[in-house]
Amino acid sequence: MAGRLEGKRVILTDPGYYSGPGIIKVFEEEGAELFADDRDLTEPGAAEDLVASVGQVDVLIANHARPFAFTPAQEGTDDEMERLMNSIFYPMHRMIRAVLPQMLERRNGKIVVASSVNAIKGRADGVTLYSAARGAQIAYMRNLAHEVAPHINVNATAQTYVDNPTYFSEEYKKTEAFRRRLAEAPAQRLASMEECAKTILFLAGPESDFFYGQVIPFAGGWAV
Amino acid sequence: MAGRLEGKRVILTDPGYYSGPGIIKVFEEEGAELFADDRDLTEPGAAEDLVASVGQVDVLIANHARPFAFTPAQEGTDDEMERLMNSIFYPMHRMIRAVLPQMLERRNGKIVVASSVNAIKGRADGVTLYSAARGAQIAYMRNLAHEVAPHINVNATAQTYVDNPTYFSEEYKKTEAFRRRLAEAPAQRLASMEECAKTILFLAGPESDFFYGQVIPFAGGWAV
Amino acid sequence: MAGRLEGKRVILTDPGYYSGPGIIKVFEEEGAELFADDRDLTEPGAAEDLVASVGQVDVLIANHARPFAFTPAQEGTDDEMERLMNSIFYPMHRMIRAVLPQMLERRNGKIVVASSVNAIKGRADGVTLYSAARGAQIAYMRNLAHEVAPHINVNATAQTYVDNPTYFSEEYKKTEAFRRRLAEAPAQRLASMEECAKTILFLAGPESDFFYGQVIPFAGGWAV
Amino acid sequence: MAGRLEGKRVILTDPGYYSGPGIIKVFEEEGAELFADDRDLTEPGAAEDLVASVGQVDVLIANHARPFAFTPAQEGTDDEMERLMNSIFYPMHRMIRAVLPQMLERRNGKIVVASSVNAIKGRADGVTLYSAARGAQIAYMRNLAHEVAPHINVNATAQTYVDNPTYFSEEYKKTEAFRRRLAEAPAQRLASMEECAKTILFLAGPESDFFYGQVIPFAGGWAV
Repeated sequence: MAGRLEGKRVILTDPGYYSGPGIIKVFEEEGAELFADDRDLTEPGAAEDLVASVGQVDVLIANHARPFAFTPAQEGTDDEMERLMNSIFYPMHRMIRAVLPQMLERRNGKIVVASSVNAIKGRADGVTLYSAARGAQIAYMRNLAHEVAPHINVNATAQTYVDNPTYFSEEYKKTEAFRRRLAEAPAQRLASMEECAKTILFLAGPESDFFYGQVIPFAGGWAV
Repeated sequence: MAGRLEGKRVILTDPGYYSGPGIIKVFEEEGAELFADDRDLTEPGAAEDLVASVGQVDVLIANHARPFAFTPAQEGTDDEMERLMNSIFYPMHRMIRAVLPQMLERRNGKIVVASSVNAIKGRADGVTLYSAARGAQIAYMRNLAHEVAPHINVNATAQTYVDNPTYFSEEYKKTEAFRRRLAEAPAQRLASMEECAKTILFLAGPESDFFYGQVIPFAGGWAV
Repeated sequence: MAGRLEGKRVILTDPGYYSGPGIIKVFEEEGAELFADDRDLTEPGAAEDLVASVGQVDVLIANHARPFAFTPAQEGTDDEMERLMNSIFYPMHRMIRAVLPQMLERRNGKIVVASSVNAIKGRADGVTLYSAARGAQIAYMRNLAHEVAPHINVNATAQTYVDNPTYFSEEYKKTEAFRRRLAEAPAQRLASMEECAKTILFLAGPESDFFYGQVIPFAGGWAV
Repeated sequence: MAGRLEGKRVILTDPGYYSGPGIIKVFEEEGAELFADDRDLTEPGAAEDLVASVGQVDVLIANHARPFAFTPAQEGTDDEMERLMNSIFYPMHRMIRAVLPQMLERRNGKIVVASSVNAIKGRADGVTLYSAARGAQIAYMRNLAHEVAPHINVNATAQTYVDNPTYFSEEYKKTEAFRRRLAEAPAQRLASMEECAKTILFLAGPESDFFYGQVIPFAGGWAV
């Protein structure tokens, strides 16, 4: 049987971060022609180069992530504020700017932002600057969805509790802070990257044809 | 290839209403053993009888719907208020009460409430009493999800703009009111019942194992 | 100085429940002509009688509440389901139906629903049927607000952690369950009924002239 | 009678933009000792200098705004992306970082972010990059609120349809685009800056003692 992404040309950014490895596995199983590209998108022109090298892009998985240290707001430096915005939100806009013209011309395309639940619900752990970059993604995405509807579907996940090395290191998973945090989720467990990728698949494939601007939490019930 | 609901015993209530026919089609394609039962669940004991007659229930699709006339709030009678609650929310609680003991005992089960976007976003068309019954569903669902986590997944759709005879009659689709309403949706079209059923499938199948208490709008971008 | 409700004729229902006593105190300080009426609004005609006896109603505070016992969903009886809907949501519709004609005729009026955060966020404590009645209120309110705008402002609070005898009895406040629940709120304390009443005042007075259909959580940060 | 901000030392940033003039008028009437400072907060050290020059800060009104041209996402330049982030979100973090140490030490303080409804609801008008900066504000604010509770209250407005020269120029108000946009709001009108300032006052004064991380739309019902 044909996969749900059969013949679809898909760009995945930051494939080594966040749920990237899970997305690669699930999307390849579903028949996608996947361009998982790890170039540094903070460089001027890098996004345009990537899109030019791929040619037709049917689906963009805007996966942008970087590790960070939990830091109280009053200790958040300008450098860290800018580093997170530069690596999480700015490259997303550049990639979208680069793929939109062809999608608008073909009147067809899907954009999925792999974002974080920190954009939509608060917690006390020193995540203000990181959350700001995620909040920028979500607000941008929601407005973009209206702007490019109805032929292009733009949606996002709001992830957490996904067992990925970027945000749930082996070290962190041994801490009391982690155990307390896990206890707050109805799921009481971490999900695998592959599980998370299946929600991204839903938003990347034909099942999302009627979805515009939606944020689907993938968070074990934490945001409810 | 095995379907996503292979071997799952699924109850669908009010199968002739709302997206019921679409659910039947999609779920049977995915291998579900479907019990689409149209008995009147406003009768005492009817929900218990239905569950007893099915035996093991892996998935409950709580689909409850009735047509209604757009009516300004100041003209909403007690009879209509009670009719909508009696046909949309009360049977849902009775069905859930009837299936929960076996799901809790097996530590396994999925409940999907096919609800309406009117529960989460307002409009001026005379839908207050209908929306109240839908709001009751969603609030109940969200709390239930916490109560029966982590082994049972309880989630909901928030539907509108689905081409179904219950809420989008051929007559209504010819009106100016309908055309104006359609113009408000980024999608600019109605979805088919089958499209809607695929979102219900997502919440009924293994892809929702990490979902608890979530409301997924299926509304062509209207709620965003 | 004139109070913020000077000369306003205000109906408050169920004045002995929920934040009723706090509302009476704060609203009288602000100059309201207050009709705090404790008649049983589940009786047919009672809402109409109350409104007729008051005459002009500038503001309706739809305060409807009853105690209930925490109960798992699978043990929720039909009687309890109906009792909560009959005492919390149905009287609200009847009161609104009774005051709307005069408000629409005068093109002026405010309706504030004193509702609960359980309508918008879930927890695992056996509150499904209670939350359903609160969810019915909120969904109804949101649609009504669109329907009767722009001359009438309809809004709601979503309360919890308010020190009132209806939902935070002295007995309950001694339990470990209560202590755990309090720990979940950023505020780390209960608010007084008077504090809560000041948010209701905001929605009842001139400061809410630009507010329609909004739900303002009064919940110590729990819903964020 | 004493005003609601009597004796409170309040910083207002960007006082000439957005609802700044309305805030000045309303806050002075309520007895605030107001420091309305128009220095350029994109300069390194400017935020720290401002706070040092004021001394004790009881309330920070994080008002940050700049005009922008409606622009489709695919035409949004890096310069514009950075200009909006640099003028709307980055100065807010710098100001908050500068006032937090004294607020935490005194265990007392209020921070109100005057933000935009574009952070929480989408539209198709070419506002993606602007909305991103607003979304960054709101997500940061929500997490900060948890971090510094319970002694400091951090909240936000989500404004639109406020008659201010920054976003509703006389020219724009003559366009068909504006008329169509106004028709979407239940209020059917613009609010004055003073009206908006009264909601900011609510979050700045004693009535918000139980509020943490909340986003109060001031949007004429548009976001509901």
